[in-house]
Amino acid sequence: MNRQVVLTARPDPAVTEQLFAAQEAPRPEPGPGQMLIRVLYLSMEPAMRGWIAEGPNYSEPVPIGGVMRSFTLGEVAASNHPDYAPGDIVYGMQGWQEWALSDGSDINRKCDPADGPLPANLHVLGLNGLTAYFGLLGVGEPKAGETVVVSTAAGAVGSIVGQIAKIKGCRTVGFTGSDDKVRDCTETFGYDAAINYRSTQDLSAALAKAAPDGVDVYFDNTSGPVSDAVMEHLNVGARIVICGTMAIPSAPVPQGPRPHRALLVARARMQGFLVLDHMHRLGEAIPDLSAWLREGRINFKTDIRDGIEAAPKALVDLLAGKNQGKMLVKVADA
Amino acid sequence: MNRQVVLTARPDPAVTEQLFAAQEAPRPEPGPGQMLIRVLYLSMEPAMRGWIAEGPNYSEPVPIGGVMRSFTLGEVAASNHPDYAPGDIVYGMQGWQEWALSDGSDINRKCDPADGPLPANLHVLGLNGLTAYFGLLGVGEPKAGETVVVSTAAGAVGSIVGQIAKIKGCRTVGFTGSDDKVRDCTETFGYDAAINYRSTQDLSAALAKAAPDGVDVYFDNTSGPVSDAVMEHLNVGARIVICGTMAIPSAPVPQGPRPHRALLVARARMQGFLVLDHMHRLGEAIPDLSAWLREGRINFKTDIRDGIEAAPKALVDLLAGKNQGKMLVKVADA
Repeated sequence: MNRQVVLTARPDPAVTEQLFAAQEAPRPEPGPGQMLIRVLYLSMEPAMRGWIAEGPNYSEPVPIGGVMRSFTLGEVAASNHPDYAPGDIVYGMQGWQEWALSDGSDINRKCDPADGPLPANLHVLGLNGLTAYFGLLGVGEPKAGETVVVSTAAGAVGSIVGQIAKIKGCRTVGFTGSDDKVRDCTETFGYDAAINYRSTQDLSAALAKAAPDGVDVYFDNTSGPVSDAVMEHLNVGARIVICGTMAIPSAPVPQGPRPHRALLVARARMQGFLVLDHMHRLGEAIPDLSAWLREGRINFKTDIRDGIEAAPKALVDLLAGKNQGKMLVKVADA
Repeated sequence: MNRQVVLTARPDPAVTEQLFAAQEAPRPEPGPGQMLIRVLYLSMEPAMRGWIAEGPNYSEPVPIGGVMRSFTLGEVAASNHPDYAPGDIVYGMQGWQEWALSDGSDINRKCDPADGPLPANLHVLGLNGLTAYFGLLGVGEPKAGETVVVSTAAGAVGSIVGQIAKIKGCRTVGFTGSDDKVRDCTETFGYDAAINYRSTQDLSAALAKAAPDGVDVYFDNTSGPVSDAVMEHLNVGARIVICGTMAIPSAPVPQGPRPHRALLVARARMQGFLVLDHMHRLGEAIPDLSAWLREGRINFKTDIRDGIEAAPKALVDLLAGKNQGKMLVKVADA
């Protein structure tokens, strides 16, 4: 059989475990040109909140009754596809299920086990690492000596952004939500300074101290009060990468300080970024990221839950910030 | 004697005639390397509101007691400067005064009378034309077939933006503040559609009708409600040029809908633009603009007031939208 987790309702507005249900389906058989993939790990993303919501977004919403969309790491179990053989480890979008058919179009890449432990393929070498890489380097364009500020700095994406910025010779400042995560930022992820935005009264004053030369690049995962504080410290020509808006509701559009005048005075740029637009450029990013990983220049933490039934709660915990690293669900042993 | 108009107080917050005072000074004599310029026209800009205000801005505020900063058209009256001869027409920053000394550092360019009537040098071939040219083409990057939306569409900058966009093969939609200006937009400046934002109840619905294929480039002179409406119609990859924020106060930062999520979903870019950063690239813009002007592909309107004493009221009228074209003050005959 093939255990699956499907979406049964849309967030209203909270994402709860009750939006999902487990079901069993027959294990599928690969047809001509297809392969059968045994799913090993599911990757949990903040973006899933958007994937299951109604309304304008950058991808079609997951249909009600459909298997939940997810990045996955899987092993080819049987193959009628010329490019894949049994035993290949593949990073793709097989969803919250134990078994999936694929014609290769929903596979992002084949993984090399020599790059590191399997979960790294869903993190530093997966969507998070690619988001950090393309968002920071492609849109943020940091230069050595500049100051890079990151919101959700200890998160799966933010922690890699901070480390890549450091590799590129920047001063790095992180905002995060607990003292434990502040410690992760400075001790594990190499930030020059980190600010607990929950316990800090005056975010703008704290940032002025942590970034005395102003902000050249802001990698924004949150919108909201942290972003508002950063807007007060932009250097001329600053670049703001909008990668996520975790701190604000999707709809209706919330109110906040208008950024137009700050952008004008600093001749700064604020740009929305979606990693899925860049997946055809994997060949540029993976060699850099895997080299940095092997050289120990990028650290990462994972929070791995067990069994496909744990997926809904893992997502809810992730969205509540209760994870202790990149949230994954282990579905099967390799 | 040299009649001058100086700044006597800062806006609180309105810009009024009482902030300025006329005074007389001796006519200066050019020293070695200097020239004496007889000012012919003053150019009035919405940006002057920022130049005289306290607080963060992209140039130092005009000092209290100082001659008001202004772009000017002048004629060289006497010269000890090797690059300038009496009779040369120069576009520079000589301020609100009849006579000015210059060592050439505050001269932007020498003008060619064959390009058109003298006032064109303060408009299509001046700061406004350059703002439109570099802002639209350099930051907005319009492509043929795209839709370009302009706020203050009949204004000195906006009217040129719309016409350059049309020359580049775009559909053009303008927002403006009266039915007369709507007529100017469609009859004089070639817009495909124009919307009176004062008399239109639902700006978003009106824009949906005027831009049925969505918005690819938004040239924003206002911020405020027009900009909020545009954000609801961004196409993927849209570019927003923030050129001015006329519709909102400088300080404190006003509240409005947060743009982050719209930028993210559309992977759009919002970028502050200051023409003064591009003045070294005049050699790229002037040949294009003067050719379009001579070919009759760019129309322009002027509202010319007489005498240097008219300058304060001309500025107040401009900021109140009471001008009937680019606002200039004629100081002397050529």
